[in-house]
Amino acid sequence: MVLAAQQIAPEADIAQALAEAGEYLDSSRPTAVNLAWAIRRQLDMVRRSGLDDIDAVRESLLAEARAIHAEDEQLCLAIGKHAAELLAGQTGLMTHCNAGALATAGVGTATAGMYVAHARGQKFTVYCDETRPLLQGSRLTAWELDQAGIDAVVITDSSAAQVLKEGRVGMVITGADRIAANGDAANKIGTYGLAIAAKHHNVPFYVAAPYSTFDMSLASGEEIPIEQRSAEEITNGFGRRTAPAEMATYAPAFDVTPAELIAGIVTDRGIISPVTAENVKAMIGE
Amino acid sequence: MVLAAQQIAPEADIAQALAEAGEYLDSSRPTAVNLAWAIRRQLDMVRRSGLDDIDAVRESLLAEARAIHAEDEQLCLAIGKHAAELLAGQTGLMTHCNAGALATAGVGTATAGMYVAHARGQKFTVYCDETRPLLQGSRLTAWELDQAGIDAVVITDSSAAQVLKEGRVGMVITGADRIAANGDAANKIGTYGLAIAAKHHNVPFYVAAPYSTFDMSLASGEEIPIEQRSAEEITNGFGRRTAPAEMATYAPAFDVTPAELIAGIVTDRGIISPVTAENVKAMIGE
Repeated sequence: MVLAAQQIAPEADIAQALAEAGEYLDSSRPTAVNLAWAIRRQLDMVRRSGLDDIDAVRESLLAEARAIHAEDEQLCLAIGKHAAELLAGQTGLMTHCNAGALATAGVGTATAGMYVAHARGQKFTVYCDETRPLLQGSRLTAWELDQAGIDAVVITDSSAAQVLKEGRVGMVITGADRIAANGDAANKIGTYGLAIAAKHHNVPFYVAAPYSTFDMSLASGEEIPIEQRSAEEITNGFGRRTAPAEMATYAPAFDVTPAELIAGIVTDRGIISPVTAENVKAMIGE
Repeated sequence: MVLAAQQIAPEADIAQALAEAGEYLDSSRPTAVNLAWAIRRQLDMVRRSGLDDIDAVRESLLAEARAIHAEDEQLCLAIGKHAAELLAGQTGLMTHCNAGALATAGVGTATAGMYVAHARGQKFTVYCDETRPLLQGSRLTAWELDQAGIDAVVITDSSAAQVLKEGRVGMVITGADRIAANGDAANKIGTYGLAIAAKHHNVPFYVAAPYSTFDMSLASGEEIPIEQRSAEEITNGFGRRTAPAEMATYAPAFDVTPAELIAGIVTDRGIISPVTAENVKAMIGE
């Protein structure tokens, strides 16, 4: 929004230009809600400020962006402190995709408890699903945990059930892109299958996300729009064709894990468990 | 074994040289049992024949190899006929890895029913898990079904649960590399997680395999050895590095699906269902 404001001519209708920029940005992530939340916060701030000078608007957008960034760091840290309590005593964890320091402002969401527990001297191994098609697990999560000195092991997504069966993992924790009022949580494709596998092995499945990931306007996860991705990511994802040309694909980028498969949602405000609409409301508000 | 026999010198101990060749070949596939079965059949044939002339041994090995190939074609076709009954009325199927015409002598095992049903004019879509790390699903199964004019759709392995949730699939069917006496079935890594996901959605999960895939010497799947693969297949599987250098991986190549997750095993002799040690014994023998 700060960058968008730099493109706005002094004579333009600032409010309208910003609204259009926000709409455009928002359209880039149909499933995730935090971006939409931050855009709305910026637009509200400008509206409330009553500013009509473009330079002043730019300055206040930048200040608000910095505030959002600082707040996100604090939120992640708060999640980490709550999650670290859950992690205590665990020697094996599993996560999917990247909800770490590379995707957030601070210590991440799914990874927050890992960083806090690691800083406290706890030893554990994190099994990182590689997360096809874009491999955020092997390219981002494993890398950042390894950099931090945390034991990370990359597995293919389809090995997760076997790793759970072998008793290597006491807890699964992932991030979320949007959480409905009843606790249903959208996250990267594969999270839902992982939650089912965790349930089958009686391994608790947790979601970690700040209050801004909750979309209380949606009664359940069925209302969360699921972004579809291009066939190329599956058929040609590594710069090499791995399926016949023109092959049909089906490529949802996210899936929704129903609340009943989630042992708890670790938020910056505390842990919602069991995950019910009532408990979500009590922690997050309307 | 035919090729190995061509290397045996006339003055060598034929029985011992063949046994050594068989052992070497057998060591290449610790999990799958059909190769070991065929090697044993060749060795038994030579022993029973009493032949001690190397030329005659070579000739009879080749004849037996051709007989095994022809028999495999017949076995696959028989599986196809039984499986086609199960498939009748289905419009969506799912499979994992390749147990098709490219991996067997005939119409495959998991795919056998598809080819037979297709030949009968039935219309259906097959969702093919791409099957990381080696992508047999996208590179082999999808290709061969597409060549045959069957609707194939490639999905990432981690999308399978979502596809099942959306009700696109009425039945999952895979091959097997080795089946224990109680019906536990080893197959390509990811099959077990898929069977759990199918169960969760009340979609029946079937295994298709000829009698020669059963290893009645093993009481349960826990005794099936699981081949481990190299880290490179995960971290550098497509000629491009997709994980940090020296990253730890865990790469089992197979997993075991317990009998209780299997709705039925489609063999050349008929369908074993429910899958119990008693029913396996009744169909396969000791």
